[in-house]
Amino acid sequence: MTATTPDHGVEAAVHQVAGRARAAATELALATRARKDAALHAMADALVGAGPEVLAANAEDVAAAEAAGTATAIVDRLRLDVSRVAAMAEGLRDVAGLPDPVGEVVRGSTLANGLELRQVRVPFGVIGIIYEARPNVTADAAGICLKAGNAVLLRGSSSALRSNTAIVGVLRRAARDSGLPEDVVQLVPGEGHEPAKALMRARGLVDVLIPRGGAGLIRSVVEESTVPVIETGVGNCHVYVDAEADLEQAVAIVLNAKTQRTSVCNAAESLLVHRDVADEFLPRVVSALQEAGVTVHGDETFAACDGVVPATDEDYGREYLSLDISAAVVPDLGAAVEHIRRYSSGHSDAIVTRSQPAARRFVAAVDSAAVLVNASTRFTDGGEFGFGAEIGISTQKLHARGPMGLPEMTSTKYVVTGDGHVR
Amino acid sequence: MTATTPDHGVEAAVHQVAGRARAAATELALATRARKDAALHAMADALVGAGPEVLAANAEDVAAAEAAGTATAIVDRLRLDVSRVAAMAEGLRDVAGLPDPVGEVVRGSTLANGLELRQVRVPFGVIGIIYEARPNVTADAAGICLKAGNAVLLRGSSSALRSNTAIVGVLRRAARDSGLPEDVVQLVPGEGHEPAKALMRARGLVDVLIPRGGAGLIRSVVEESTVPVIETGVGNCHVYVDAEADLEQAVAIVLNAKTQRTSVCNAAESLLVHRDVADEFLPRVVSALQEAGVTVHGDETFAACDGVVPATDEDYGREYLSLDISAAVVPDLGAAVEHIRRYSSGHSDAIVTRSQPAARRFVAAVDSAAVLVNASTRFTDGGEFGFGAEIGISTQKLHARGPMGLPEMTSTKYVVTGDGHVR
Repeated sequence: MTATTPDHGVEAAVHQVAGRARAAATELALATRARKDAALHAMADALVGAGPEVLAANAEDVAAAEAAGTATAIVDRLRLDVSRVAAMAEGLRDVAGLPDPVGEVVRGSTLANGLELRQVRVPFGVIGIIYEARPNVTADAAGICLKAGNAVLLRGSSSALRSNTAIVGVLRRAARDSGLPEDVVQLVPGEGHEPAKALMRARGLVDVLIPRGGAGLIRSVVEESTVPVIETGVGNCHVYVDAEADLEQAVAIVLNAKTQRTSVCNAAESLLVHRDVADEFLPRVVSALQEAGVTVHGDETFAACDGVVPATDEDYGREYLSLDISAAVVPDLGAAVEHIRRYSSGHSDAIVTRSQPAARRFVAAVDSAAVLVNASTRFTDGGEFGFGAEIGISTQKLHARGPMGLPEMTSTKYVVTGDGHVR
Repeated sequence: MTATTPDHGVEAAVHQVAGRARAAATELALATRARKDAALHAMADALVGAGPEVLAANAEDVAAAEAAGTATAIVDRLRLDVSRVAAMAEGLRDVAGLPDPVGEVVRGSTLANGLELRQVRVPFGVIGIIYEARPNVTADAAGICLKAGNAVLLRGSSSALRSNTAIVGVLRRAARDSGLPEDVVQLVPGEGHEPAKALMRARGLVDVLIPRGGAGLIRSVVEESTVPVIETGVGNCHVYVDAEADLEQAVAIVLNAKTQRTSVCNAAESLLVHRDVADEFLPRVVSALQEAGVTVHGDETFAACDGVVPATDEDYGREYLSLDISAAVVPDLGAAVEHIRRYSSGHSDAIVTRSQPAARRFVAAVDSAAVLVNASTRFTDGGEFGFGAEIGISTQKLHARGPMGLPEMTSTKYVVTGDGHVR
């Protein structure tokens, strides 16, 4: 393959890093937990030690973003400080403290003919991660991939390139110093969109691709990739307040799900209310939301409340990620389920009810990664679920669904042991 | 969407069957095991009852295939008889007898804050299966999908269209008569390649696509599909005979793996022999293989044996599916692993050895769906593994790897139950 066109050059460069990742993964797959944990601690120490170097690189990224007129919210995500670097290091140490998923026997039996069958967790091999502005993802993703025995190819946004280069440089040196191949962590080189596209097409070289970021990024990876993808994170999450809801609980759950943090995928974006409680509940929830600064985009019934903006059909499909919520009154639980089936992104949907049959029916009928009963959608989170580390929240049904921890970053193999067995 | 071009017409037709499948899946997901098993038994009875109708349709397919000069092996796959129809019915009854994967609690715990967390198996929803000549796949796939709560869209080959239409007609009537929606089983309509392509692009309408057939079919589905795919079945399987092998066992295993059935993905296609035992083992294995009618495509050392054909690099990458095997002598176990890493399709690879350290090293280093020790590669099979039913053998690392039974035909959801919990 000669690099006659820019495209081929980019592809060759991506294949080259993928080849190095494969070689590193082959060695890493055989590394003991002790070796991997030692490397994670070395990486954490190195990050803290190299804090000034990382912060200086980050300051350049931030200055360039500000000079380019980037939105404040995005610059904030990009910005690192001493405590964020310390948090990255702490994250790596936390991952070191988690059990090693590799080698776990998922199932096993002795067959009638005496063959011993075991299904054992093994690393995927090479994982590609395509992500947006937050440079802390660089360390988090590298740590989780490494612990699960995978080499990682990181493709961050160009706005964070200096930060990511500094962080990856530190992690690679620490890996090498602790006796692992430095190519367990690599940045995918090159400018523009082509390197990410080459990564998406590197089937056979990259085992799994995980996009982390906004809906547009995720859609483009899902549609263009020939490498198997785990789709993450778009959340149009619903809270349904049933006829038999405890309305005080319902107000608290809606408020928490919408406002505790608005920019995250498990925040509520849509409120459905059973018509039997609408008269009593709507004024209470609308005023509570408005007091918290939320704009309610409501159907006709909601629009009768002061300050409610009429909702369009588009509103019900939106992931606002802001102080906005769509809202509608439904005639019954079945209509709520229908609405959710139509508009939900399949992330997290909650029911508030004191009725056991209603809860049972909602849980069975709503086809989402997480279905919550009398709890805020904000609980759909690897940390909250006790996974210790999270690489993202899968909204697809294949392989992993919901928050993904270390076990989700592995595949399995069957080991079959006999004594000269033939069929 | 108006059907202005043939393509749009095909797409609209595929979207229409997918929409009906979704509606059926929504109902099926809530069906109890008892209802599903009753439908499977009804389908089995109906198939036996409609045997003459199915065989008449099949006879037309066979006659057309023969008139078109189709290869005998393919016509044989296409051909049904009374015992094959009975076997299809028996397969459906077997699936009815298996435990229901839906509702299985995969993990569960109570979190520190009292939230109850359960990860529960749920159906995928709509599964698409694209397959080649064997009409028995039609009933097998429908039965497995139904038991796991999924509606299935079947796209068989045009050569089996009359047979598949007859079988699906019988299954649909039986489903309806037993109270399930008939659209739990549908054929994807239309001629040529476009309907399969529309199925591959029906992301959001179809949850998973499983290609079953030859390497060409599988490659095209994997490359063109935007629907998540489970790659199945291409098997370039190796047997490595170690320096410490029991050579009598080794001959038996090689012979069984190569010749017990040649047209299947778990048949051995390549033989590697440690050089320390080459002098003693090569003449024995070559003559045993040749007596069984196998052509050995060997490296220089093998080529010294009478009748061995010199192997090209291409031979080592081939899935012959015939009485042919590639063969090479390797200097050590590490070289065997290297060779397998380079040429294996990641299906099933075996070592024959009496050395525990060699077995351990081979199992750890060979990155395939199944790694066998002192056993024939032919054992990589859902039936042999005791799964009771098999939809195919996954050679990808995402979601399922190796033989796939009922649990692999499901996804999971998290159910989180609280008492007004907020963060």
